[in-house]
Amino acid sequence: MGKEEMIVTPWKVSGDVDYDKLIEKFGTKPITVELLERIERHAGYLHVQLRRGIFFSHRDMDWWLDIYESGLPVGLYTGRGPSGPVHLGHLLPWFFTKYLQDTFDADLYFQMTDDEKFLIHPELSLEDTVGYTHENALDLIACGLNPEKTFIISDVKHISHLYRLALQVAKHITFSTAKAIFGFTESDNIGIIWFPAVQAAPCFIQSVREGRKVAVLIPAAIDQDPYWRMTRDIAEHLGFYKPAQMHAKFLPGLGRGGKMSASMPETAIFTIDPPERAAQKVMNAYTGGRPTVREQRMLGGDPSICTVFAYYYYLFEEDDERLKRLEEDCRSGSIICGECKERLAERVKIFLREFQERREKARELLDKFFLK
Amino acid sequence: MGKEEMIVTPWKVSGDVDYDKLIEKFGTKPITVELLERIERHAGYLHVQLRRGIFFSHRDMDWWLDIYESGLPVGLYTGRGPSGPVHLGHLLPWFFTKYLQDTFDADLYFQMTDDEKFLIHPELSLEDTVGYTHENALDLIACGLNPEKTFIISDVKHISHLYRLALQVAKHITFSTAKAIFGFTESDNIGIIWFPAVQAAPCFIQSVREGRKVAVLIPAAIDQDPYWRMTRDIAEHLGFYKPAQMHAKFLPGLGRGGKMSASMPETAIFTIDPPERAAQKVMNAYTGGRPTVREQRMLGGDPSICTVFAYYYYLFEEDDERLKRLEEDCRSGSIICGECKERLAERVKIFLREFQERREKARELLDKFFLK
Repeated sequence: MGKEEMIVTPWKVSGDVDYDKLIEKFGTKPITVELLERIERHAGYLHVQLRRGIFFSHRDMDWWLDIYESGLPVGLYTGRGPSGPVHLGHLLPWFFTKYLQDTFDADLYFQMTDDEKFLIHPELSLEDTVGYTHENALDLIACGLNPEKTFIISDVKHISHLYRLALQVAKHITFSTAKAIFGFTESDNIGIIWFPAVQAAPCFIQSVREGRKVAVLIPAAIDQDPYWRMTRDIAEHLGFYKPAQMHAKFLPGLGRGGKMSASMPETAIFTIDPPERAAQKVMNAYTGGRPTVREQRMLGGDPSICTVFAYYYYLFEEDDERLKRLEEDCRSGSIICGECKERLAERVKIFLREFQERREKARELLDKFFLK
Repeated sequence: MGKEEMIVTPWKVSGDVDYDKLIEKFGTKPITVELLERIERHAGYLHVQLRRGIFFSHRDMDWWLDIYESGLPVGLYTGRGPSGPVHLGHLLPWFFTKYLQDTFDADLYFQMTDDEKFLIHPELSLEDTVGYTHENALDLIACGLNPEKTFIISDVKHISHLYRLALQVAKHITFSTAKAIFGFTESDNIGIIWFPAVQAAPCFIQSVREGRKVAVLIPAAIDQDPYWRMTRDIAEHLGFYKPAQMHAKFLPGLGRGGKMSASMPETAIFTIDPPERAAQKVMNAYTGGRPTVREQRMLGGDPSICTVFAYYYYLFEEDDERLKRLEEDCRSGSIICGECKERLAERVKIFLREFQERREKARELLDKFFLK
């Protein structure tokens, strides 16, 4: 079977994603050892997502650290398209964002693009997407972000905070430019064509609110990069800094190939899944194991193509030594898939139980987190 | 000299405007005697702009009257692009709108498109256009509208009231449709491509605020028609009535041909012009007179091409008998241009003095008129 063509856009990610190629294609920079050491110096430790190259690429992160180290104001911005429940793939960069917030004591603006999701999904109403904004905000809050320093923006509810900035951006982006960056066609609606200006706006909101130039870093999955390329092109013209970026890889789904996606619920673990249900999805996951236990014992499995191993790697085994041992045990055939899955399922269940408890408690905090 | 090609779009009006052709081209209906009689019945009199066919065309005005007569809720909507000071051509439909408001006791939503004007004028900042919103609102208020029933919307400041509606509109309008209606090209910015959705939104705002379907009538110059064609196409799909319309002719400028335009300040009378300055513009106006007084006395003038006569007709001689006499006196040569201009200049001065007084008093009322 040949490799599937790689497609990575804000609205579609499919095929076998080659991250080195993306760095080349998007013109970003790999995160170097030197950069990791600089971050570690400030944080006291390296986050597992940095140690393992899950955040693998950046733009101007070194400049952003320069600004921070010289005592000038820095901020964070990321977001979510609220079109359904949150799964583990969404949580991944949010956990990392919390690490950045704690390390750099930075304000975080978090955009819920409930306008975009309404505009692109024929079947979703504004009530649906604004409803998901609230539901998804619970997940964000459950990640442990600082309520004093986190400002959740619902585009629909808080447009008055964004509109002036979005207009300033939009005035400098022609349809032709937007078409080249996002692949728009003449059949796209005039709302989604306008939307990139709305997604750009929060890059500058902290600067406007504080009345000074703030250096903003955007930690996000790499499919969002086109927005920031566009934004960087015009930022200085509008009197702001270009936003810096850190790019994450996609958490794979539990099926064969591709990122975790809400449109394939059987291979995605949602934060609101009953823990037993999630455990079952793990038990049905695609692995790098052999057809029979006998073969597995004799020949060993292949963790490099195994979604179960990926889950340990991305989220559920932070201890590097133990992860290494697991990998060796798999390759040597001393652990079989059933056992490995059960162990992961147990961890997923524990994680979900705890997360869901924090998520319920977050309901009382919602008001505190939304932008005023 | 041949006739100049007629161009009538929201962004450009030029050439010799043939209003009968516009009715045909835009697919609207002429205002019939029967319709005039119906309006007169409610108002007690016919507004000069109806008697003289200045409001000359409509869509569904008869239906709107049906709704009104059956006791169901009706409303009014019109607006202004605040890119500079207001001139008499802008006031014309506002005077008429006051007549409609008084007659039908209707709420009026008045949109200041300070976003649009920012997006299309390279040299204007948001501060400029929002500033003009406030300045132009003084002119609107000076027209005597009811503060209890008039709601001025600044797109930039009140976008939170419009955004949900605009998104619903935008979702149903493709770039291709907008291109066909407004003549957009790929070099247009993504803000102005989105803007028609914002101009459509106030058609439905009263319905949303009152939680019931309100029949809305839009009195406006006919160049705005493309917006309403677009809006009417999708209104029912969104659960609202199609807005009805009444279309006004353009007040000519004081120069040779074309509508009054702020871009030709010598031939436009601004509400903030010092009265003496305005009088001077009248004295310099293009007339239908003869090269010499002698010829004028012998052959008479031609009021049909005279801008001075047009000003009496549109605004400064409401008495039909006297207007008729003036026309006859011109044609017979018993009045010469100098005298006719001086008389108009005097009326313009008196008008401006009174208007400017009301306009200054309006500063205290601004808050009361803006949408809450």
